[in-house]
Amino acid sequence: MAKNDRRDFFRRSAALTGGAIAGAAAATSAARAAPLAVPPTNQEPGRIIEESAYGVPSKYEAHVKRRRTDVLKNRQNLSDWSMTPLQYQPGIITPNGLIFERHHAGTPDIDPRTHRLVIHGMVKQPLEFTMDDLVRYPSVSRFHFHECSGNGLTDWVKPASTTVQQTHGLLSGVLWTGVPAATLLDEAGIDPKGKWVLFEGADASAHTRSVPLEKVLDDTLIVYAMNGEALRPENGYPVRVVIPGWEGNVSVKWLRRVKVSDQPWYFRSETARYTDPMPNGKWRKFSMVMECKSVITSPSGGQQLKNPGFHEIRGLAWSGSGKIRAVDVSTDGGKSWREATLEEPIMDKCLTRFKAPWDWKGGPAVLMSRAVDSTGYVQPTVAEIQKARAIAGFVQHHNGIQPWAVNEKGEVRNAIGQA
Amino acid sequence: MAKNDRRDFFRRSAALTGGAIAGAAAATSAARAAPLAVPPTNQEPGRIIEESAYGVPSKYEAHVKRRRTDVLKNRQNLSDWSMTPLQYQPGIITPNGLIFERHHAGTPDIDPRTHRLVIHGMVKQPLEFTMDDLVRYPSVSRFHFHECSGNGLTDWVKPASTTVQQTHGLLSGVLWTGVPAATLLDEAGIDPKGKWVLFEGADASAHTRSVPLEKVLDDTLIVYAMNGEALRPENGYPVRVVIPGWEGNVSVKWLRRVKVSDQPWYFRSETARYTDPMPNGKWRKFSMVMECKSVITSPSGGQQLKNPGFHEIRGLAWSGSGKIRAVDVSTDGGKSWREATLEEPIMDKCLTRFKAPWDWKGGPAVLMSRAVDSTGYVQPTVAEIQKARAIAGFVQHHNGIQPWAVNEKGEVRNAIGQA
Repeated sequence: MAKNDRRDFFRRSAALTGGAIAGAAAATSAARAAPLAVPPTNQEPGRIIEESAYGVPSKYEAHVKRRRTDVLKNRQNLSDWSMTPLQYQPGIITPNGLIFERHHAGTPDIDPRTHRLVIHGMVKQPLEFTMDDLVRYPSVSRFHFHECSGNGLTDWVKPASTTVQQTHGLLSGVLWTGVPAATLLDEAGIDPKGKWVLFEGADASAHTRSVPLEKVLDDTLIVYAMNGEALRPENGYPVRVVIPGWEGNVSVKWLRRVKVSDQPWYFRSETARYTDPMPNGKWRKFSMVMECKSVITSPSGGQQLKNPGFHEIRGLAWSGSGKIRAVDVSTDGGKSWREATLEEPIMDKCLTRFKAPWDWKGGPAVLMSRAVDSTGYVQPTVAEIQKARAIAGFVQHHNGIQPWAVNEKGEVRNAIGQA
Repeated sequence: MAKNDRRDFFRRSAALTGGAIAGAAAATSAARAAPLAVPPTNQEPGRIIEESAYGVPSKYEAHVKRRRTDVLKNRQNLSDWSMTPLQYQPGIITPNGLIFERHHAGTPDIDPRTHRLVIHGMVKQPLEFTMDDLVRYPSVSRFHFHECSGNGLTDWVKPASTTVQQTHGLLSGVLWTGVPAATLLDEAGIDPKGKWVLFEGADASAHTRSVPLEKVLDDTLIVYAMNGEALRPENGYPVRVVIPGWEGNVSVKWLRRVKVSDQPWYFRSETARYTDPMPNGKWRKFSMVMECKSVITSPSGGQQLKNPGFHEIRGLAWSGSGKIRAVDVSTDGGKSWREATLEEPIMDKCLTRFKAPWDWKGGPAVLMSRAVDSTGYVQPTVAEIQKARAIAGFVQHHNGIQPWAVNEKGEVRNAIGQA
C-alpha cells in the first residue's frame, strides 16, 4: 500500500472526530480529551540495578514461554520437545530463552573444560579438540532458521492444534557462531574416498546422524554460540553441529565425535524415524532439506480480532534451499492472492518476515500465506503434497500452506484441511 | 588470507606430527592417540524439559554478565548503568539478558494494560494510544546498534579500565520492532510550524529529550519489542523510542508523551549533560550522532593469549551515519594497517563484525582497529579528537581508536593514550 493510500486508510478507519472513545473501526482507541494522568512510576523511584544480574522478561510477559505440545501426549519424557511461541515473536530472531527444545534422552550437563571433540575415520590425521582449541579457529556468524522435521506433524488433514506455537513452534531463528566444519576437516585431511560424515552427541541417546560430505564441506558449522552468547544447555552446550536449511535433528547437539566414511551408517534416525512414507508403500530416506514454507503468525489460531478495520497480516517465511523470493497472502481461502512486503535483510536459509495490510470488514475470512524461494519452488498445499507422498501416521516434513479461519466475531481458528 | 595460505598456516602451526600434546604453536591441543573416553553424559539420562520454563544460560557461563563500572564509583544508585560483556559476544546481536542498562531513577514497573502514550502539541488532533492500539499499526523490524554517549568516558588519555566490557560495554546490538514514529505523527497531523519533538518517559526522572522533527520522521521508531520478544523492563517496557544511530539517551524509555513544538526545550540532559566541551571554553550542544567507531573484542583487555601462532582478531564496528565500509587492523600500534574481513549482513547504523587472521610471534604487540563508514568518515585517534574538542572532565562521545597492548606473556592490557 503506498504511503498516501495508507494514510487515507487510517484517516478513514480511525474516525478521529470526537473527544470520546473512537468507533469500532478505530486503530487508535481515543482522541485526547482530558489531560494524561501522571502515573505512579513518574512519582517514585524504580528498581535499582541488581549487580551482575542476567536479565529476565517482565512479569507481565509470563504467558510468553515454550510449551510442550498439548496435542500429542508424550508417554515418557526422555524423548521430548517444547515449542517456540511464534505468535509473540516479532522479527526473525528467537530469544535464546524461547528457542524450541528437542532431545532424545534429556539435556546433558557438560563441563566445557573437560569436553572433547574428535575427528577420525577416513582422515589423514585424527584430531582431538578442547573448547579452547575450537574457539581459536577462524570463526563465522550466520543467521539461519532452525526447524524440526516433525514441525506440523499433528496437523496434516484436519485441525488438531489451536495456536501457531503448536502448529509451527518447532521453528526458531538464530544467529549461529562457530567454525566451518570444512576448516576442521581440512586440517584433519580427508581421504579422497570419504563421502559421508557421522556426527555423534554426548547425550544419553548418543544421537547420531549421517550427512553427505558435500553438504558438510559446503556450509556446515561447528557451533559454540547462538544469538551473541554461548549455546544454551538444551541447544547443545558447549558445541554442536549446524547444517543450514536441513532438518534440525541432523544438527547434532553436544557434539563429541565426527567420523568420515565412504558410506552412510543407516542409524535408527535414518530408517525407523525421519523418513517419509510414499504412496507406493516405500519410504523416502535421507530427505533432509526443509523445503520452502511460510506461516502467518498474526492473526493466528487462538487470537481474536477486536475490531474491524485495519489489521497487519504478519508472518515468517523460510527455505532450506536458499532465500525467500516472494510471499503471497490470501484472505479468501486461496481464491485470490496478493504479494506481501518482505522485510530486509533477506538471508540465505533464514527466516524472512513478511507483512501485508488488511482491511477486515467484520465477516468470515480465511487467511493463508504461500512462499516462493530463490529456486522458484512454490510452497504447496497439503493436497499437492498428497499427490507425491502418503500422509498417514507420524509424517514428517510438512511444509503445506496453513489456513487460519476468522469468523464474524473475529475469532481465529486453525483450518488445515478445511479451506 | 586465501584458503591455501590459511591451510598452510594451520599445517605449519599445528605441528600434527606426534601422538602427544602438540607444541606451543598448535591450534589443536593434541593429535589423537588413545580412544576418546565415553563421558558420563552418554551413560545416564539428562535433564527433562521443565514445563513452560524460560531458558537460562549454562551454569558454566555465570561469568558472562552485565556489570556496573568498576572504575567510576557511583555514589548513589538511582542514576546508574551496567555494561554488556562484549568480550563474550560473538556476532552482532546482544542477548536481551546482557543488553546494557542506563537509567536516571531506576527501572519502573509498568503494567502494559494501563499504560498510555499521548501525542500532542503542534498537531491537528491529539491522540492517545493503548499498547493494543500501537501493536495494531503497520510494524517494522530493524537491526541497529545502541550506544550510550558516555561509552568510554573513563578512558580518554590514560587507561582506567581493564576489559572491553568496561571501556566499550555501553553498547549493544538489537533487532528492534515497532511502529515508525512518522506513521503515528502523520495520523495526528503535524502543524507546518512543528520543528522539534519532545519524548518523555514514565520513570521517576521523567527523562525528557528534544529531537529534531526531521530525524523523527526519517527513521525513528516507537518500539515495543527487542530481539524477538517484548522489551525488557530495564530497556523501556512496554514502549520506548529508538532513534537509530544517535546517543542512547534520546531513545527515551517507558515512553508516555510525544509533543511537537517549533523549538527545542533545552532540558537538563541538553545543557548540563550530554554536551561536548570545546577548546574555546564553549560547549557543543545537540551533538547526538554517534560517530563511526570500532573496537577489537578479542584479544582484548584482561585476556591472555595461551600460545604463539594463529589467533583471529575479532571485533565490532558501527556508525550512526550509515553503514560500515571498511575496518583496518594494526598489530604494531598503528605503524602498519591491513584490511579486516567484514561479515555479512552489513546494515545501516548496525553493528558489523570484523575479523583478521594474526600470527602472533610471541613478542610485544599493540592491536588497534580503525573503521570507515559509508560517508567516508574515518574513526579518529584520541589525539585527532583533541585537536577539535577539549578532553577534560566528564567527556562524552568518545569514538577514538582503542589500542590493546600484548606483552611477551600474552597478557592483553588497555593501552589508551600510550600507543
